[in-house]
Amino acid sequence: MANNLLQGKKGIIFGALDEKSIAWKVAERCAEEGAQLVLTNAPVALRFGQINELSAKLNAEVVPADATSMEDLENLFRRSMEIFDGPCDFVLHSIGMSLNVRKGKEYTDLNHEWMLKSFDISSISFHRMMQVMMKLDAIREGGSVLALSYIAAQRVFPDYNEMAESKALLESFARSFGYHFGTKKKVRVNTISQSPTKTTAGTGVKGFMEFFDYADKMSPLGNASSEACADYCVVMFSDLTRMVTMQNLYHDGGFSTMGMNPAVLGL
Amino acid sequence: MANNLLQGKKGIIFGALDEKSIAWKVAERCAEEGAQLVLTNAPVALRFGQINELSAKLNAEVVPADATSMEDLENLFRRSMEIFDGPCDFVLHSIGMSLNVRKGKEYTDLNHEWMLKSFDISSISFHRMMQVMMKLDAIREGGSVLALSYIAAQRVFPDYNEMAESKALLESFARSFGYHFGTKKKVRVNTISQSPTKTTAGTGVKGFMEFFDYADKMSPLGNASSEACADYCVVMFSDLTRMVTMQNLYHDGGFSTMGMNPAVLGL
Amino acid sequence: MANNLLQGKKGIIFGALDEKSIAWKVAERCAEEGAQLVLTNAPVALRFGQINELSAKLNAEVVPADATSMEDLENLFRRSMEIFDGPCDFVLHSIGMSLNVRKGKEYTDLNHEWMLKSFDISSISFHRMMQVMMKLDAIREGGSVLALSYIAAQRVFPDYNEMAESKALLESFARSFGYHFGTKKKVRVNTISQSPTKTTAGTGVKGFMEFFDYADKMSPLGNASSEACADYCVVMFSDLTRMVTMQNLYHDGGFSTMGMNPAVLGL
Amino acid sequence: MANNLLQGKKGIIFGALDEKSIAWKVAERCAEEGAQLVLTNAPVALRFGQINELSAKLNAEVVPADATSMEDLENLFRRSMEIFDGPCDFVLHSIGMSLNVRKGKEYTDLNHEWMLKSFDISSISFHRMMQVMMKLDAIREGGSVLALSYIAAQRVFPDYNEMAESKALLESFARSFGYHFGTKKKVRVNTISQSPTKTTAGTGVKGFMEFFDYADKMSPLGNASSEACADYCVVMFSDLTRMVTMQNLYHDGGFSTMGMNPAVLGL
Repeated sequence: MANNLLQGKKGIIFGALDEKSIAWKVAERCAEEGAQLVLTNAPVALRFGQINELSAKLNAEVVPADATSMEDLENLFRRSMEIFDGPCDFVLHSIGMSLNVRKGKEYTDLNHEWMLKSFDISSISFHRMMQVMMKLDAIREGGSVLALSYIAAQRVFPDYNEMAESKALLESFARSFGYHFGTKKKVRVNTISQSPTKTTAGTGVKGFMEFFDYADKMSPLGNASSEACADYCVVMFSDLTRMVTMQNLYHDGGFSTMGMNPAVLGL
Repeated sequence: MANNLLQGKKGIIFGALDEKSIAWKVAERCAEEGAQLVLTNAPVALRFGQINELSAKLNAEVVPADATSMEDLENLFRRSMEIFDGPCDFVLHSIGMSLNVRKGKEYTDLNHEWMLKSFDISSISFHRMMQVMMKLDAIREGGSVLALSYIAAQRVFPDYNEMAESKALLESFARSFGYHFGTKKKVRVNTISQSPTKTTAGTGVKGFMEFFDYADKMSPLGNASSEACADYCVVMFSDLTRMVTMQNLYHDGGFSTMGMNPAVLGL
Repeated sequence: MANNLLQGKKGIIFGALDEKSIAWKVAERCAEEGAQLVLTNAPVALRFGQINELSAKLNAEVVPADATSMEDLENLFRRSMEIFDGPCDFVLHSIGMSLNVRKGKEYTDLNHEWMLKSFDISSISFHRMMQVMMKLDAIREGGSVLALSYIAAQRVFPDYNEMAESKALLESFARSFGYHFGTKKKVRVNTISQSPTKTTAGTGVKGFMEFFDYADKMSPLGNASSEACADYCVVMFSDLTRMVTMQNLYHDGGFSTMGMNPAVLGL
Repeated sequence: MANNLLQGKKGIIFGALDEKSIAWKVAERCAEEGAQLVLTNAPVALRFGQINELSAKLNAEVVPADATSMEDLENLFRRSMEIFDGPCDFVLHSIGMSLNVRKGKEYTDLNHEWMLKSFDISSISFHRMMQVMMKLDAIREGGSVLALSYIAAQRVFPDYNEMAESKALLESFARSFGYHFGTKKKVRVNTISQSPTKTTAGTGVKGFMEFFDYADKMSPLGNASSEACADYCVVMFSDLTRMVTMQNLYHDGGFSTMGMNPAVLGL
């Protein structure tokens, strides 16, 4: 299935935890398409995950970085430039975590210090990363920056809690930074709004399975898998989409455009 | 021009600083339409502004509150319930401040601690306020909660800087909390996305006047004034819009729907 | 409940058939708010409906007009100008009919001649009407033109069939003509996207009741009634919304912003 | 640059007129990526254009068809199935024509018979084509249907005239038919909303060059070329985007997300 779409390109993948992670599949597919990769994740995630397996398989160095630390991010991009012997061509941001969800707080009874921390990890990390990349000139002209989002940024899914706001914020950063990066370096910045996916993170959310099934029935093509998402990411990293920027792209089997599907009503 | 649209209603207005403030005009118009009001602002804003004038004119008590402090907000709503002898009917959130803008930081070189503070003041304050209101049962069934937003939440206006993200966040809170408040108490939550307005805060932004003129030319009806915005807020507080919720309502003379206006090109 | 919001204003209401019609309720509420009205409908609808009752009750003349005939529309607006002794202040377009739905054709097996006729009746009539109004100078500066739409213009509701396209077309006319009318005469043009409503037309659609209940459960405030819609129309005809134009305004209890509501899943 | 993305696939391209046509470039790129093609256009366009050149170059048969004639469309798809020895894998709709624009009518003084004809040619042809394809089983499971659109479907560009409505209609057909085709055959249907492009059709529109330059300045990456559009179409026809459906995809260098670009103001 490989088409050499990323031949000669160099990319940095944030957020591969284990083989269920979307970022994991993206890394595998990018390598298959000819890319050289650097993998990164938070030190704590590295400890619990299986990223060394992936690293070995893809011959891709792991550089730990806490995405809320400017120092760590600077170190990551400097090290990548050494490994790649120059700037990278693409970056994937696949990071999300809600302290309030983890601690079981209801949306109408949130701890706002935790909320700030959730935003910093899940969204502001995206701005931090791009700010460092621009400062260090760590991405090549025409490069592609991508983050994974979810339709809760536009519509209400009660169980998604403060992650709705995290994703709204993430998509706004893509638009705003996309202008600056596009004007200055023809780098494009987009988000992919992916179907609910059975990752280790996703399945931990309350009511996930009911919701997964609902979305699957609502979508004319069913939910998009993480494999299909990886294919879409490859496309967005390739030069074939070089004029697409500042967009939020639904990858969801049609869910976002459905108002009502008789299949959901059992009709 | 009064139509008694808010006869017998009680409202809380956040953010009236001086007579150029939209919140100031909203307070005046609400009083004209028969509402009883409580005014509030941050202690520091109270010191620099002229809110006591407004308080005297409308016979409306001022209760200071830092909108990032749960304690202050609890105190505000408790005091309001005493003043009103029960819950309120409507609330206006008109708060926005960017530390990075104030300190002259470029969007690609932001201080992220200041960003977190900007979000807390401009946006998270809206969630905090609603959380306190729900907990204290401080708003009546069918009540109306409104926040002022700006189209930078959807599209890029480079000089608006991190306020774009603040507004994206604000509108997301309106949607998410709107679900919970609607389901539980038939309270509706909306944002009004207002034309650029010559407030004391607005005119301080770099390039404001050029931008104001551009928006004015782009909009078939011209920019909406703060007086017109106050009228629209009255409408949204009245029972006539009782089924409108979780919406972002453009009040902008048509700006948001224009792709290109020959007037802008001088044609 | 009257607030004299339309005192001294003159309006033309298209599409009141019987007392279940939204247009019927709008006419009643406009009269209550002080407006003088002209009622109009297609000759065939006049024959089957009860509009004469409404005419008598509101002391409003009925002027028959086929909204797909430029001649009829010219006659209508000329006659209205005689009755009003000048131009009108507002107009409601509440017209919709699908020949393919009526004849039971599936969306994947439509008759395209009927489709063209459906578009002419349901949507192009809106352009025709505005074109005649502009030509005859039949609406006053600052006037308000409104059409009733449905969210099928944005999202798929399979049973709505070709009415989805009719509404997409209708809303596009509102935007485009809104620019011209705004620039030339400060007249605003908007659409209200209303909840499914138990009108004589609506309840005839296949699967209407199942769908009505689904929408009702999905919406945090429930479906908006035709009475509430009439209130919203009054607001949009009043001067209080004079800077709102070229917008599609959801009046739906929050339906449009919901992604998933546990109530729908029976959770 | 070829990546064999369409190896073994068969496609039908509507609307290649001359070498400036987007459809022409799409045909060339699809062939380069390994696809076998059938070309089609209206008999009158075939007479004036240079499609035989393209046909010879790509070894692709030309089957004339008036896209407003069900008989012609049936003949086209039957003939294609003979040529391909089975159903096709993808289809491009690149058809648009406005009689009112061609005859110099202003938007506020349109001929509505011509409007109906414009809609039939530019938009309803898309529904007709899909209806015939579904009936004849002329596209394979997982196939991809694409039409070219323009942002005038969402926002007002006065000179675009009734083509705004044509595109709104076109995109609605993509959504509605996308549901049916997706549910029944996992075929996806999307529209690409392309930058203004210097085609023979485009450059004929009044004020095109001023507008082209405006859009180019407004877009952080500049206007997308027809070559870049062809690349994006290849991606949408490939299996890598198999879960993307019922979407309108902006291919515009970021234009759609810009609110104001200092470059436009000459700042």
